[in-house]
Amino acid sequence: MAADAAPAFVLIERLPAPGEETLLDGDAAHYLSRVVRARPGERVTATDGAGTVATLEVLESRPTVCVIGGQHRSVPRPAERVLLCGAPEGDRADWMVEKLAELGVGRLVLIECERAKWERAEGKLERWSRLAAAALRQSQSAWLMRIEGPLALATAIAGAQSAVARWVALPGAGTVRLSREDGASWCVVGPSPGFSEGEVKRLQESGFAPAGLGPSRLRTETAALTVAALWQAGGAG
Amino acid sequence: MAADAAPAFVLIERLPAPGEETLLDGDAAHYLSRVVRARPGERVTATDGAGTVATLEVLESRPTVCVIGGQHRSVPRPAERVLLCGAPEGDRADWMVEKLAELGVGRLVLIECERAKWERAEGKLERWSRLAAAALRQSQSAWLMRIEGPLALATAIAGAQSAVARWVALPGAGTVRLSREDGASWCVVGPSPGFSEGEVKRLQESGFAPAGLGPSRLRTETAALTVAALWQAGGAG
Repeated sequence: MAADAAPAFVLIERLPAPGEETLLDGDAAHYLSRVVRARPGERVTATDGAGTVATLEVLESRPTVCVIGGQHRSVPRPAERVLLCGAPEGDRADWMVEKLAELGVGRLVLIECERAKWERAEGKLERWSRLAAAALRQSQSAWLMRIEGPLALATAIAGAQSAVARWVALPGAGTVRLSREDGASWCVVGPSPGFSEGEVKRLQESGFAPAGLGPSRLRTETAALTVAALWQAGGAG
Repeated sequence: MAADAAPAFVLIERLPAPGEETLLDGDAAHYLSRVVRARPGERVTATDGAGTVATLEVLESRPTVCVIGGQHRSVPRPAERVLLCGAPEGDRADWMVEKLAELGVGRLVLIECERAKWERAEGKLERWSRLAAAALRQSQSAWLMRIEGPLALATAIAGAQSAVARWVALPGAGTVRLSREDGASWCVVGPSPGFSEGEVKRLQESGFAPAGLGPSRLRTETAALTVAALWQAGGAG
């Protein structure tokens, strides 16, 4: 029986079928050969980030990484957690993305607001995707957080009709149980200068109920993280 | 009536009495003169970080910052939230400190564990104190998060006898309501390599009950932040 490599969990978009040999490249190859230093004969766990987990056996690890596919299993899709988030200050989005992914947010949608835009987001999306992939490895999750946008607020919330719970985080609102529903739950967090009055009105008219996150004034990224922590750890479903 | 400066909230350990003139130095002076550019005649809000808030009027702002004390008011001490935390990886403590302070943790106690020590913590305590002070300004809180340690785990938990709730965050444990009590609530979070079995045993024998933070494997700093978010936003008291 093959030995397990040091806890290795990698993201491979196209998982090899059982018995199929495949060469890895990019982050997965780097991670296996350089970070966990997997050796031929060792087994590692891989996911496609879309609910399938497979055991792979390493056939070759240097200079190229070649693996053979093992058994696949499916991990049920968790209740959908969608976080719409305005721009935080400075470079605070990097670790926000990492933490939201680690805390199991399903989709992060970057929203453009009246008082703040996401600057140079297009150039950063690749880095954020890598951070989300790294968080998936860390949390050994079978579901990769998807990052979308930046989208205009009105466009972003148009997809929320099917959500069973819709919240907008507002300072001073009463704390609520964000939801324990099995269906999709959406929460919108404003940018660092806050929402405009018009935006709050539009959100409420679209069925987003005010949710307070406690007595402190929180920065955008801290509010986003608090929502994710509540979703993840109960207290909120 | 004096005008208000752009939202200014500063930490001044010794607040001037009403009518008392005082020269400011250090971070408070820098913040008022350079960051919010307060001008003579403007009013700012200050706290001593120990529950007292005062309105100050700026008499002079350059080159020295001189203020005159106004009315004092007291903000009740919130229920005590004490987080004992092992060392996270790398430089992740910096933003962890900022976020825990922003989320209203009362005391952060750095604990030395069998599998991980805080490295060069003494040299970093000043920076962390500044980050806690910056978070206090951001959240406009009257209570400054205190940072203690690093202490041996056994020493750190010796003070927990008076706590009404004692938790240890353990992966895989069931999620709990951390507590809604008004009294002190303590929670212990392990270092990045986790607690040893002996440490878990000692904590449980000392009355720390296992608390799960959801299905994901969380990094030390993410677990600490989740605890603080639950304390702050309800779901946990």
